[in-house]
Parts: sequence; C-alpha cells; structure tokens
Amino acid sequence: MVDLHSPMLNRLIDAWLDEDLGRGDLSQPALNKGIGSAYWMAKQRGLFCGGELIKRIFKRLDPSVEIHLLIHDGDAFNAGEKLLNLQGPKGALIAGERTALNLAMHLSGITTTTATLVKELQGTGVRLADTRKTTPGLRILEKYAVRCGGGVNHRLGLDDAAMLKENHLAWTSGITAAIQEVRKNAPWPSRIIVEAETPQQAEEAVHAGADGILLDEMRPDILHSLVPKLRALAANGSANGLPRQVVLEASGVNPKDLKEYAACGVDLISSSKPITNSSWIDFSMRFKEVI
Amino acid sequence: MVDLHSPMLNRLIDAWLDEDLGRGDLSQPALNKGIGSAYWMAKQRGLFCGGELIKRIFKRLDPSVEIHLLIHDGDAFNAGEKLLNLQGPKGALIAGERTALNLAMHLSGITTTTATLVKELQGTGVRLADTRKTTPGLRILEKYAVRCGGGVNHRLGLDDAAMLKENHLAWTSGITAAIQEVRKNAPWPSRIIVEAETPQQAEEAVHAGADGILLDEMRPDILHSLVPKLRALAANGSANGLPRQVVLEASGVNPKDLKEYAACGVDLISSSKPITNSSWIDFSMRFKEVI
Amino acid sequence: MVDLHSPMLNRLIDAWLDEDLGRGDLSQPALNKGIGSAYWMAKQRGLFCGGELIKRIFKRLDPSVEIHLLIHDGDAFNAGEKLLNLQGPKGALIAGERTALNLAMHLSGITTTTATLVKELQGTGVRLADTRKTTPGLRILEKYAVRCGGGVNHRLGLDDAAMLKENHLAWTSGITAAIQEVRKNAPWPSRIIVEAETPQQAEEAVHAGADGILLDEMRPDILHSLVPKLRALAANGSANGLPRQVVLEASGVNPKDLKEYAACGVDLISSSKPITNSSWIDFSMRFKEVI
Amino acid sequence: MVDLHSPMLNRLIDAWLDEDLGRGDLSQPALNKGIGSAYWMAKQRGLFCGGELIKRIFKRLDPSVEIHLLIHDGDAFNAGEKLLNLQGPKGALIAGERTALNLAMHLSGITTTTATLVKELQGTGVRLADTRKTTPGLRILEKYAVRCGGGVNHRLGLDDAAMLKENHLAWTSGITAAIQEVRKNAPWPSRIIVEAETPQQAEEAVHAGADGILLDEMRPDILHSLVPKLRALAANGSANGLPRQVVLEASGVNPKDLKEYAACGVDLISSSKPITNSSWIDFSMRFKEVI
Amino acid sequence: MVDLHSPMLNRLIDAWLDEDLGRGDLSQPALNKGIGSAYWMAKQRGLFCGGELIKRIFKRLDPSVEIHLLIHDGDAFNAGEKLLNLQGPKGALIAGERTALNLAMHLSGITTTTATLVKELQGTGVRLADTRKTTPGLRILEKYAVRCGGGVNHRLGLDDAAMLKENHLAWTSGITAAIQEVRKNAPWPSRIIVEAETPQQAEEAVHAGADGILLDEMRPDILHSLVPKLRALAANGSANGLPRQVVLEASGVNPKDLKEYAACGVDLISSSKPITNSSWIDFSMRFKEVI
Amino acid sequence: MVDLHSPMLNRLIDAWLDEDLGRGDLSQPALNKGIGSAYWMAKQRGLFCGGELIKRIFKRLDPSVEIHLLIHDGDAFNAGEKLLNLQGPKGALIAGERTALNLAMHLSGITTTTATLVKELQGTGVRLADTRKTTPGLRILEKYAVRCGGGVNHRLGLDDAAMLKENHLAWTSGITAAIQEVRKNAPWPSRIIVEAETPQQAEEAVHAGADGILLDEMRPDILHSLVPKLRALAANGSANGLPRQVVLEASGVNPKDLKEYAACGVDLISSSKPITNSSWIDFSMRFKEVI
Repeated sequence: MVDLHSPMLNRLIDAWLDEDLGRGDLSQPALNKGIGSAYWMAKQRGLFCGGELIKRIFKRLDPSVEIHLLIHDGDAFNAGEKLLNLQGPKGALIAGERTALNLAMHLSGITTTTATLVKELQGTGVRLADTRKTTPGLRILEKYAVRCGGGVNHRLGLDDAAMLKENHLAWTSGITAAIQEVRKNAPWPSRIIVEAETPQQAEEAVHAGADGILLDEMRPDILHSLVPKLRALAANGSANGLPRQVVLEASGVNPKDLKEYAACGVDLISSSKPITNSSWIDFSMRFKEVI
Repeated sequence: MVDLHSPMLNRLIDAWLDEDLGRGDLSQPALNKGIGSAYWMAKQRGLFCGGELIKRIFKRLDPSVEIHLLIHDGDAFNAGEKLLNLQGPKGALIAGERTALNLAMHLSGITTTTATLVKELQGTGVRLADTRKTTPGLRILEKYAVRCGGGVNHRLGLDDAAMLKENHLAWTSGITAAIQEVRKNAPWPSRIIVEAETPQQAEEAVHAGADGILLDEMRPDILHSLVPKLRALAANGSANGLPRQVVLEASGVNPKDLKEYAACGVDLISSSKPITNSSWIDFSMRFKEVI
Repeated sequence: MVDLHSPMLNRLIDAWLDEDLGRGDLSQPALNKGIGSAYWMAKQRGLFCGGELIKRIFKRLDPSVEIHLLIHDGDAFNAGEKLLNLQGPKGALIAGERTALNLAMHLSGITTTTATLVKELQGTGVRLADTRKTTPGLRILEKYAVRCGGGVNHRLGLDDAAMLKENHLAWTSGITAAIQEVRKNAPWPSRIIVEAETPQQAEEAVHAGADGILLDEMRPDILHSLVPKLRALAANGSANGLPRQVVLEASGVNPKDLKEYAACGVDLISSSKPITNSSWIDFSMRFKEVI
Repeated sequence: MVDLHSPMLNRLIDAWLDEDLGRGDLSQPALNKGIGSAYWMAKQRGLFCGGELIKRIFKRLDPSVEIHLLIHDGDAFNAGEKLLNLQGPKGALIAGERTALNLAMHLSGITTTTATLVKELQGTGVRLADTRKTTPGLRILEKYAVRCGGGVNHRLGLDDAAMLKENHLAWTSGITAAIQEVRKNAPWPSRIIVEAETPQQAEEAVHAGADGILLDEMRPDILHSLVPKLRALAANGSANGLPRQVVLEASGVNPKDLKEYAACGVDLISSSKPITNSSWIDFSMRFKEVI
Repeated sequence: MVDLHSPMLNRLIDAWLDEDLGRGDLSQPALNKGIGSAYWMAKQRGLFCGGELIKRIFKRLDPSVEIHLLIHDGDAFNAGEKLLNLQGPKGALIAGERTALNLAMHLSGITTTTATLVKELQGTGVRLADTRKTTPGLRILEKYAVRCGGGVNHRLGLDDAAMLKENHLAWTSGITAAIQEVRKNAPWPSRIIVEAETPQQAEEAVHAGADGILLDEMRPDILHSLVPKLRALAANGSANGLPRQVVLEASGVNPKDLKEYAACGVDLISSSKPITNSSWIDFSMRFKEVI
Repeated sequence: MVDLHSPMLNRLIDAWLDEDLGRGDLSQPALNKGIGSAYWMAKQRGLFCGGELIKRIFKRLDPSVEIHLLIHDGDAFNAGEKLLNLQGPKGALIAGERTALNLAMHLSGITTTTATLVKELQGTGVRLADTRKTTPGLRILEKYAVRCGGGVNHRLGLDDAAMLKENHLAWTSGITAAIQEVRKNAPWPSRIIVEAETPQQAEEAVHAGADGILLDEMRPDILHSLVPKLRALAANGSANGLPRQVVLEASGVNPKDLKEYAACGVDLISSSKPITNSSWIDFSMRFKEVI
C-alpha cells in the first residue's frame, strides 16, 4: 500500500483539493443542509486502485465522512458494479467528488493496463517493472497502481538507486570509472544499474561490479546468449573475489513480444506503457438523500 | 499560454523536481564537470506542447541553462524531428531531464489527441471543450494543452462558474431554486450552467435564467428540435424582460459522432477524451560533449 | 458562506496564528491549568461577520475548544451585546484571542459599511458590487464580508473574468481586437468586461460582444441616454445574430450620489469603499474562571 | 525599513500574487508583446509607504522590471504627484499592478493617519505606540507603516515581550505570581509589561518587577499623581536592591485628548487607530507604450 | 514548555517525519496488522527532555496512538529506567520511532549538559544563559532543553533583542550612534545589548543607554572592578535623568571557571557548550505484542 | 557533494534563515550602507565541511554576495587558519552570519569525528558507516559530513532500503516471512538488511535471501567464525540457485575496539558516534570595512 503515514501525502491531497475548489465551490449555497449518502459505480470493467486514498481525500475535507469500500485495491470489477459507499455532509461529498474520482479513475487505468501485460508474463518467472516515466507529482501513486496490477517497481527516483544511462556515460570517463565513482559516494545499500546498448557494455559493467544491467533494445537472439554469459561473469566473482548476482532487465520491448523476451532468461522486463499508454477507467458517483 | 507569472507554477515545478531528485541524484559524482549540450528529438509524430514550461523547469535548477526552442506549442512535428537545444551545467541537464520530458510528453499527447477531435468539427462552428476530468495537480497545464490542440476550456474549477449537475440537483430544492440560490451568492460575472438529463429540465433551466445548458447524453434527433426551442426561450427574455443568449453544450458524445452532434446547432461539445484517453508522445533527450 | 472545505483556509489561519505566536506565547507559564470560559462583547453597534472563521481559528489551536455563536453573519448587534461564548483550554483561548478578534473586527467593519451603502440602493433593483481593491491576503474573506452586508461580489481575481481596463487597452490593438483575443483563449464561461471611459468605447465594446461594461466616472445625464442605447445594441444581436444581454456597471460614484446613479438604469454600482474606507468594529473578549 | 532579507517576505508576496492571479490572468493574450512603461500617481495627498515592497512585488514576477522611486517612505506627497516610474514586460506590470497598489495604498493610509496623531504629541517627548490590533497576515508591514508615520512599535507578537492583561490576570494567581512565573521561563531580554486597571494594580506590578505598565483607561488626573509615584517606586529599587526604570504607557486615549495625556508624564501612548481606523490613500498606475 | 499551540511546530514535525519516511517505509508490508505496545528505556543516566514533543510526533502520524509519560521534562533518570509507554497501530509506532528518539535523545543530551554547568553556579545567584549557536532548524527546541536543565534563554533571534557585537560595531558609527539608531527603530520593549571587548566600550555602552552588556573574554580581576562601576553608572541615570539597571553578562568563560566568574557579580554567564558540546543520551524503544 | 540542485535545499535554508531573522534583524538600522568584506577563521583544528552550503545560504539572502572558499570539504585546517572570504551588502552578511556558522561548525564537527574513527580502520578494508541517528531536519547534510570524513552512508531513510530490526521482527511472522513480504512490495533495487541478535538469526536471514546482515553487539570471537560461514552460505546460492553476496556489518562496537572488529572480516562497521557524540568546531567570522 502507499504509506499513508507520510505527511507529504496530506500536502498532495490539499494541493489537489485547492486546485479544484479554488476560491470556493460556487454551488454550495444551493445545497440543502445535512448529511447525504452516495456510492461509486464502475461504468466499465477493470481493476480497482485507490481505496485508501479516496478515504483520505474525503476525510481531509471533513473527518466525519464515512466511506465503506466494497472492493480491495488490485481486485477486478465489472461494468455496473458498486465500488464503495459514502456518507457525510453534502458539501464535503460534492467538494471531494471530482478530485477523488479523477485520482481513482487514473490509477485504476494504470492498474488495469499493468495487469494485462503482467498476464503475458504469467508462468515465466519474469516480472514486469515500471520506469521513471510517471506523471509529474504522482509518482508514488502511479507506482503503487503498477504494484496493484501485479508489476514490480523499479527505483523511485534518482536517489534510491543509481542508473548509468547512455546519456550519463557520454559525460563520464567510461563505465568502469563511473561505477567506481558512484560506489564511492552512494549509500552502501544503493544498487548501481548500467544501461547497456551493446553486449560489450554489459560485460564491462558486470565486470566492474554493477548490480543490475538494463539491456536496452537488444534482439532476443542476442539476449539468449548474453544472459547466461553475464550471469556466469558475475558468479565468477568480483573485486573481492566472491561470486555475485546480477539482475538482468530487458527494456524497449514491444508488449506483443513479452513472452519471447521472457524466454531469454532475464529477471525483469521494464515498460512505461501502464503509465504512458493507459486510459482512465470510468467511474461515477451517484448521490441520494439520506436524512 | 499558461500564465508564467504565477508563483504557484514555481512551487509546482519544485515539487516535481523534488519528487525525482529525492535526497539527491546518485549519479552526479560520475559526471565530468563543465558545460554540456543536448537536444530533444521526437520519436513519433504529433503536436508539441510545453516549450516555456521546459525552459522554466531547467532554469529553476540552474538559471544559466540556455534553451532554444525549435517549435512552438501547438505546432506539428514528425518522428525524428529535433524539438529544442539545451546547453548548461551537466548536472542540471541530467537533474531536469526526466521531469521535463515527462511533462512535455504527457502534454503533447493531450494536444495531439485534442487536435484529432477538433479536426472532426472543422467547419461546423462548434467548439470542442474539455471538462474537470484532469489529472490531480496538473489541471491548468492539461487545460493549456487542450487549447494548444485547438480546444476551448470549460470552467477551471468549482469557483469560476457554477455547474448544477444531476448530483447537485438531487440535493437542492429543484433547478429554479438552485439557480436563484447560486445567483444570490456567486460573483456576478460567474455563469451558471445546468446539466440537463431531459428536455424538460433544459427548458426549466433556461426559463430560470441559466447561462448555459449541458445537454447530457441526448440523442441527436432530440437535440435537433430542442436546441432552437431553447434559443427561442432565451431570446424571449428573462426575469428582467430582456432577451438573453444561452450557451448550449452537448456531452457524452462518442468521438465518431462528433459531426452528427455538431449539426444539431449546439455551441460546444465537451469531452474528457483528450485527457483521460490519450497516450504520451515519445521524446528523447540526447547529450553531447560541448566543452 | 466562505467555503470552509478549502485546505487553503487552514493554511491562511496557520499563517495568522504563527504571525502572532511567533516562537511561542511568553505568558503561558503564568496561566493556571485547566479549562476556561469566555465571551465576546460588542463595544459599539454594527453588523457581524466571521462566526465560522472564529470557530475555525480556535479549533486549529485546539479541537476541544467549544464555541457557541449568539449571532449570525450579517446580523445587526448593539453596543454591549454578547456575540459568542467560548470554552476550552485556557492556553488555547489566549493564543487565539487576538487573531480571531482582529479578523472579526476587520470583517465586521466591512459588513457594516457595505450595509450602509446598500441601504441607499434599497428598492432601486441596483446592486452594490465590490472591486479587486482588497487587503493583500484577505480577498475571499473581505469579499465574503461584502456579501454579508448585502453587496454582490465582482470577479474574484484576474482569472475568473476578464476586465479590459484603460491600462490594458493602451497596450492592445483596440477594444474589438482585445475582446476577440481574450475570447479565443479564455475558458468559455468567463465573461469579458470592458471599462469604458467614453460612450463610444462602451458602444464599441457591446458591438464586439462584451458581456459587461464598466461605465467609469460618467455623469448621470450621460448614463441616462447611454444605458438604454447599450441595452438595445445588445438586444439587436451579436456575431451569431442572436440577441444578447449586457451587464452595465457604474463606477467612480460618490456614495452620496448612489440613488441618482441607480436611477440611470445600470445593473450594478461598484465601490471599493466598504474595504478601503471602513473602520474596524470594536469587540472585546472577556474571560472567566470555569472549573 | 522592513527587513528585506527575510525569506518569509517572499512567501508573503507569492501568496498575495497567487491570490490575484489565481489560475492565470485572462487578459494577457490581448496584450501586445514587449516592454512597457508606467508610473504611479497620487490621487490625494498623504504620506507614502511601501517603496521597497513595491519593487520586490514586481521583481518576484519578473526580475527585469525596473522601478525608480521618486519618493521615500514616510515622505509627504500631494494629489497629482508622481510617485514612481516602472518599466518592464507588459504582462508583469499588469500582473503585479493591483497587488502592489493595494499594499501601498493600505500602508500609506496607515502612515498618514499615524502622522496626524504623532503631530499632536510633537514637543511633548511622549511617543505614540501601536498595538497587536493588526490585519491578520500583515503585522510586520503595518507596524512598519506606523514607524514611517513617526510612531514607535509596541511588541511584535506574543513572544518578544510578555504583556499580562486583565484577561490573563483572571487566570493566574495574581500579578506578582504571574510576573515571577513569566520571568522564570522567558528569555532574559524579554520585558514584562502589566496592564493595570487600577493604581493599586500598577503599584503591585512595579513592586513585583514589571518593566512596563500599561495604564488602561485611567483619567488624566489619576495619572498625574500615579506616574511620579510609580517612577519613584521603581527608582527605590527592586528584588536585587538596585534602582530600576519602568516604562509607563497610557492606553484607551481618545485622539483628541492626546496632549492632555502626554502632559501626565507617561512615556508612551498606545493607539490602534492608525491601523483600525484609517482609509487607504488612493493611487493609480498609468501605462504608456514605450517600445 | 515549548508552546504547543504553534502551527509552526506541526510543520517542523511533518518535515522531520518526511525526512525519515521519504516515499514510504519499506518494512510496513512485513508487519502484522493491529495494535502494538512499546516502551522507552534509558540506556544511560541523564535528565529527560521532550515528553510532549514525543506525543505530538506520534499523534501526527496517527491520532489514536496513546502515550503515557513516566517522567517529566527536566527530571533525572537512571540507566535502565523506563521513560514512557506507547500503544497504537504498529505501523505508526515504527514510522515515528526513529524521529522521536532522535529528537528526545538530542534534547536530553542538552538538558543533561546544561544541568552540569548550572550546578556549578548553584547558590551564586548567577544564571547560565544560552546563545544563538543552535542547530539550524531546532532553535526553540534546543533552547527549551536548556531551560529544562536549569538554564535561562538569551534572545531567541535577531528580532527579539538587539545585540551589537564586535562585528556590527565595525560597520556602524560607534557604540553610541548604533544604540541610538537601533532604539529609534526597534519596538520599544526590545532590549539593546552591547558586546564589549574592553572596559571602555562597556562604559560607553552603559552611558549610551544599553540595557545589557556582554563582557566578552575579560579576566575575572577586570570584572571585579568593572561590574560595580557599570552598575553605578547605570544607577546614576540616563538620558531622562532616571536611574536604570543594566544586565551584565560574562561570556567566553571556561566551564571550570564558572564559580570564579560568578563571584565577579555578573548577572549571567552565557555559554554555547550545552548545545555545541553535548552528546546524545541513549534511549531505546522496545516493542511487544499486545493484541 | 550534497546535491545542490534540489529545491528542497532552498526550502531548508529559508527555514533556517527565518528561524534566526524572525520578524527582522533589529540591528540593521545601525549599519552603515554599502559593501563589506569578511572572512572566516578557524579557532581550533579540524576537518572542514559545508563550503557550498555556506555559499548557498548567503546567496539566498542576496545573490550579489561573493564567497571565495580557501579550503575544500573534507580537508584539514589548523587553528587560526583562514577558511573563506566573503564580500557583499553588509546587511546580508550579518543576516546570514549565525546560520552559516552554526551549520558549518556543526557539520565540521561531524566530519572531524568521523575521520578519527575512519583512521582506526585504515588499511583494514573495512568501512565505517553511519546510521539513521541524525538530528531531525539535517539528515542529508549530516550524512554528507560523514562522507567528507571518509565514512560511507548507510540507507538515507525508511524508503531506500529495508532494515528488519529486532523490533520489527517482534511484529512479523518471522525473519523468512518478513523478507518475503518486503521483497514482494519493495522496488526491486531496494536491498533488504536484517538485524541479527544471534548467529542463528543471521543464518536464517542469509538463507532467506537477505542482502545484508547487521550483526548487532556480537563478540569478536563469535564474528570470527560466523562471518565466513555466512559468506559461504550466500555463495552456495539462493532461491534461484545462483551464488550471491551478502554484506556483513557489525554494530554496537566501542570505538576503541574498531580494529579488533575489523579483523573479523566484516564489510562495514556502523556507528552513530560521529553524529551523536561530536562537538562543534569553533569558527568565527570577522568583518572589515571595504568601500
């Protein structure tokens, strides 16, 4: 789950609510006073994401809003299915409606798309990973949606793992030197990953002690021979003479080729598709009079 | 253009950068010192959006970064086309790369999708409007992208126009009373728009002085007769005996039916598709040594 | 009412409290522990404003503070009248005292002054509107106070309606071009208002499709003939051949001439006086021991 | 001068600008590009306040705006007098216009009113002090305006000096105990001031070591004998046997009685009038084409 | 006590929690659900500080956490002593553990060190004061810890008292002019303190009306004669002919010489040691299953 | 180096400056106008830390301040050595003085203490790591200071590596289950570290696939046999049959025993001492007239 303890999450939610409320909801004076109830309904099928976040959004507006989730994050729903019930002051339900729907529809779209790709990999032992291609401001939430769809998260930012990409390498003194420089300065638990465009780069990186290799846009036939070679190189040991493991990741893979790539023995296939190429799942919030 | 004077924009950009940088980019120690140059290239065709925002992102990191845009917002580009050149301290170029790309790829996707729908309406005099279905935190930017694609913005939030939707009406004392209550409290320039599910609701709303009617999920044959009827009602005058205009908007329209709906005489067709149903356009940033 | 759902309101209140508390109230160690009660008393007559805001201020300091309002916003009170009762931890009552009083005394002054001007217009059908001359940081609150006094709010900022003023026009390509340019870019529900210094400007603006005309510092005799002329122009239709309405507003009116101007048939008279030229109404908070 | 180094000031200005700009100035698309120039003119006489703040406001919007002040803070101007010249990007000048004018007109009103009261005290050696009755969010600026008008600031908040007021005393174990308790906990440079409603309270406070006494709503004849008595008490020494000084302040004084109170020998007369009872001074900003 | 009403304190705590939680605690998925209980134990002897702050930290994470303090701030504890009990959702207890411990261990170290120095001064009537040498971001908390250890706080910042130090004086027109300039502009309750490097400077400062003199790095034999001389100067009166008091403070004193300096008759000895030269006191938080 | 691109760093610096400046530096009116110059001098020997941060602090106050560093972070200096030169507006130099000194003195203390411990390990190949015992609000800066002293950073927070400590394990279903649960949810590059109190726990953790083992408070004789055993276990392979490496870390080591522990073959020894048990290094800033 997204870590709901983080004060940062409250600040995010406040910013979203202010974005929609601006100087104040003009429709409020037309509303009858009192408590109202409402529910959410799915207008198409998919996988759900965002339950606890929806709760938090409405409770930031008014702690007395009560929300009863009828579905867990990651679960499937059908068109027409009821997703949750809400009850609370009418003004608060209307003030939070759009923001909560927008978030959950967006995240559920990501979860649903992720699951489609993950299904392709079922039984292969290979995991689908996301990337840093995320909508500005929503990274931890979109990455959570990927997990709900069965994917695994790649690094969360520039600071929890180092990835030396083609661009970086152009501005360093080479793969080996770059790995050494990062290792010297980074916290010891940080993994160093190298994006390799060629088998030679991949080998140099393993030799120099990289923890992971991103094998970018390499053909399956190349990967078939390269993957065991890299694993052997790692098992043969590193600077300190001890055998190591290296995590091998394929990227730049067309979704329809997932199975073929999985067969190459990589650990991970990373894809930005669930985030950059998914549509929102349509939900609606329906109101009824309660008291 | 997005209003670049707003201090709020700087806070947004800072939040995005912090999201990616976290406690600091681990790759920085591997970079050679000095100035680098880079450029952006489109990996697929589309319409561009985000030029001034990209500038702002890099300049927040380091005011000495220089960016030369080769394309204007709203303009078309081909796959392989160069979009902009950058020059500045290497660390700043790498620190801003992902955030700037993510924003521009997302916005350009919206602009491109919008333009496709707008093209359908070409020559009809009917405009395509967006909705409040926007990604939390990015509303003014996504709405700007819609404008770049030839669309027109609907209200920006709950506070710059009042829209009485089906849900609101369930909790008010009816359309007429709701309009009066909002009119009494809202700033005078605020328009009041009523979402009508039936022709009767639409007529009541016009009669009660609504400035706009959202004709939701009504069939074209119904609209053909309803639209002139509503216009006539308005021209016949309102409370103060003076003729008025009413803005008529169709919603819930399948993109393939845009032309048919446009022929019904409405002023606007609103659609969330450009935002909820568009893919990012792929750009890449390529680095080269300069000094 | 001010929209109390907005997270922005909490941030405003926190900033006000920090302004007064600084690094901490030095008098706290002298206070006996426990719960205290207090009440507010008016030291002069006037109209009240700020009840829900006062509640919010004290509850930000300590949610256990209980406040019982004895008067509604917009209602009149006499000197010596009790306005509200409070009960809560003594430290919280003292910590919020000055901030809450300052806000309510300031807003009540605005409400009281507004009501005096509004009374002049009673029976004329003409409404008194405020302006953007508001104290930095307090706009939505001061505009709320104007509404409590019977006034109507003009636009809330530069973004919810466009007003082309004398200054803008000096830097555009003329009234007609400016209106077209704004219309093309602004959200469709935004009204465009033109400040006219001369009848000719007013006519051009109506012709070009302005939604409202601010008739600035024109003599009543001029308005008497201009108003019906502008209304007729609008009713004769616009670009799309349909009759329209135009909202006519007089400004630069001396308070003593309000009735005379109202007789000219305008819809609104705008005045900054309730905000720029009103005195605070004096309240005091009296404490008593309760437990 | 207001301390312009404080990062807090930048946050205040950003908040004010966002308040007016909201989601962006709708008039910007109508403006011709390029640099414009403008000037400020006084529409009535008064004393000026806010020069450096005006500069800061425009420069937050665009550092390239150039402002040339023609008058110093605290100086007098006549109706029709030019106050300052501005030059910069047109969009920035329009975006900052209202906020800067609102601030300076409000502060100049306070400076002007302060000076009127200060003039009453001229030659008496008695200084006019402000209070904590300030508009929420603007305290340091309003207190600066008081200084520009010749007044002296009282404490800035609850944390830079302790004032034991009638209300506090109701909740403490008496004046002497309260002074001791505060002295024990407050930073040593903090002065302790006691609000006395009776001569007896004033004497107890001086005896207990108060640094200042606020003589609230006491008649001049009472003050005439009380003031020298209190000074003698202080000079006779305190806990440590050493002679002390005590600052004596009259409050609750009608402006017309200032001279009479000054003659009683107090050091200060405090009044909230310059802030709670002053009108804005009217300025206008006029634009001209420059390039 | 630290003033717990301040909204600023909540912002500080949020920032600390975000610093540790980052994008979310990775260990949370491993935790069994439900309520847990825990306690804090001292691993070495010392004086406690931070009880109410610890409560606030955990309650920001989850208001349902219950904390029972077994010791008051400022009290002594032994190694192995239990300090407090906690009960609440396991995730919240783990999320707040490190931040709360770090704060309390740091503050308790300051309190403990302060008490050691204060003990040296016992019976002398001279108080130990802190300085502005505090860890950035923690000043009010560290100064509170000093008070808990029996010390007295010096000014809290640059704004609640003016201290003219050697460096300032180099850039002013001399002690007397500097005092006059500050007195003219500062709030009247602000004390002015002058740092004197020589007896002559001290005398000039007293003569010019300084409220306090910081006698920096003067030998005890010099102080023995200077202290009574300065007190006499002050008692002889100032500008207004009235006798005054002056607070005399020694600084730059080696901890082992505290008694000798105290014997010189100064009021205060200031030292940064409790903050710049103290070690954390080691606490640990132990968890147990509760439900 | 600390990543200076992060907008978060600017917010930290603003908060520190506001902490000291409060409502504004009262001494500013006494300062002569114009540019001043100053330098920093070490009052005792040590290792320097904070150069770029000092620059940033002064430049936030006034971008025109020029700072010339005479020493690099991590380098040694002697008592009396000049560390840097500054030149800029006098007011800005005084406004930033205390904050910059406090930060650099604190960080240099940490760097100096770290280096002392690191020296003990020289030639052993074992590295000294820090912990999460850092002063709230200063973690990335204090961890940077540790690096400057030759130490290596452990994880930066709860989110960049998972450490299952004694406390966590009490609330999980055992080491193996906890590792599996975290592995399933954490980003793939995150390492999982287990704190082992006994050799059995350490073995279970390696077997279950932990990336690192924190061997807490184990005697050297135990480590001597345990370390090779754990390495062999890892090399024998894991779930996927491939040999792995495990990072072995000793904690709870008395500084005087560092060498003895290093001889046990661990990779790291972690210690909070450089942060929890170091004194500030004393610097002073000296001013001189320049123009």
